[in-house]
Amino acid sequence: MSWIKAVGIGPGSLEHMTLQAMDALKECDVVVGYNTYLNLIKPIIQDKKIIGSGMRHEVSRCKKAIELANEGKKVCVISSGDPGIYGMAGLLLELSAKEGLDIKIEVIPGISAVNMAAALLGAPLMHDFALISLSDHLTPWEVIERRLDSAAQADFVIALYNPRSHERENHLDTALEIISKYKPKDTPVGIVKNASREGEKVIFTTLESVPIENIDMTSIVVIGNKNTFTIGGKMITPRGYKL
Amino acid sequence: MSWIKAVGIGPGSLEHMTLQAMDALKECDVVVGYNTYLNLIKPIIQDKKIIGSGMRHEVSRCKKAIELANEGKKVCVISSGDPGIYGMAGLLLELSAKEGLDIKIEVIPGISAVNMAAALLGAPLMHDFALISLSDHLTPWEVIERRLDSAAQADFVIALYNPRSHERENHLDTALEIISKYKPKDTPVGIVKNASREGEKVIFTTLESVPIENIDMTSIVVIGNKNTFTIGGKMITPRGYKL
Ligand SMILES: C[S@@+](CC[C@H](N)C(=O)[O-])C[C@H]1O[C@@H](n2cnc3c(N)ncnc32)[C@H](O)[C@@H]1O
Ligand SMILES: C[S@@+](CC[C@H](N)C(=O)[O-])C[C@H]1O[C@@H](n2cnc3c(N)ncnc32)[C@H](O)[C@@H]1O
Repeated sequence: MSWIKAVGIGPGSLEHMTLQAMDALKECDVVVGYNTYLNLIKPIIQDKKIIGSGMRHEVSRCKKAIELANEGKKVCVISSGDPGIYGMAGLLLELSAKEGLDIKIEVIPGISAVNMAAALLGAPLMHDFALISLSDHLTPWEVIERRLDSAAQADFVIALYNPRSHERENHLDTALEIISKYKPKDTPVGIVKNASREGEKVIFTTLESVPIENIDMTSIVVIGNKNTFTIGGKMITPRGYKL
Repeated sequence: MSWIKAVGIGPGSLEHMTLQAMDALKECDVVVGYNTYLNLIKPIIQDKKIIGSGMRHEVSRCKKAIELANEGKKVCVISSGDPGIYGMAGLLLELSAKEGLDIKIEVIPGISAVNMAAALLGAPLMHDFALISLSDHLTPWEVIERRLDSAAQADFVIALYNPRSHERENHLDTALEIISKYKPKDTPVGIVKNASREGEKVIFTTLESVPIENIDMTSIVVIGNKNTFTIGGKMITPRGYKL
């Protein structure tokens, strides 16, 4: 029986992978993925057929996986973090449904960048939060602006994925400006770069002092709510317990 | 050296635990937690000292953990899902910071209920989403209403934690009414009850037909955005790729 599993490999280091993800990678015939992510799990896929490709080849990667499953193979399509959060799960399910295929597709959740970043920062996500991607590659920028505005106004903790790339150097500036309309200048902000990967870096700052030039495509930015505080090198959003 | 680790055990079944969480539970002297969660991981903590308590004893559990660490013990405080999402991480860090203690506290992320529910539903979280807890035990209900309103208006996918309990039977009704001001009646809604636990149940419905009486405290409710659709028994929020 062939199948496809959309496997979350976690943020980087193997120790954050789940047992289920490990098992899927053990049981499959082929692993399909973005080269950078294949590299992260190299030690455990030595004996597998590996099909890697570059960035922005998501659609062709999924088509290839479906093709292989149709040929009877057991295929793992890997995503960093959780395949269900800005990952490959949706595309795989969409493509196979549209083509009316009868392949078993399973999603294997993983630790997303936001969970890992939060753990490294302390506990910034203890209350309601919104995830927003600043990439306008697939989403109109106006939609992103509206979501930033609403989330800030309603005092959500906000986590920004895809905060900055060469093609959109000014998005993060604009995003922080919108958020600053509602959140005070001294709102704690945590930045995690390369969470659980080589070059991991954790930065604690405030809304008015975000070091934009230090932020890149493998960073995540977490902006607190009105109760978030920083103490002893930890960023904490209290849940509301009386202590 | 003593330490405390806030360990995410994932949604239920052991296969969703990470290797790091497994290791922490192996290395510790004592495991502190809510009885229901201790039960879920019973097979792997047979040889440990176990300190269990009932619901709503979060503060005393954390104090106990800190006391044990002060006595030189290695302590795991477990949370279901991710300890950083409506879990124990914040409370532990807050308490130890407030008491000015010098105990090493580490947060070990886990697969949160929302990641697991999404995987079982298909791929509903492929675009920007907001997590909102409907529990007004620690948060004023007006704040919750405002967040529901803003998130729905800005077309976020919305995931509701703590959707319903005996003490607040009407909250979910009210929440769905607020969301329905902005989202069409036929917006796909996915409900997962006991994700990855005994009695797991997955329900696909729409905003106008949510079976409120089937939803309880161990359920999570995911409401789509304007592009979310259901096909072949999967709930999918497209990321925007042209197929
Ligand atoms: C296309 S999204 C993929 C998200 C992934 N599926 C997940 O669940 O983490 C890529 C974005 O995720 C964030 N990200 C992924 N891995 C990260 C890491 N190890 N450290 C920091 N941010 C990361 C960055 O914001 C990056 O631009
Ligand atoms: C206090 S919160 C704890 C959340 C947990 N720390 C996490 O990350 O999943 C409890 C709520 O999480 C959701 N939840 C936790 N485990 C679940 C499961 N196995 N299935 C469905 N919902 C779950 C329910 O909405 C429940 O009311």
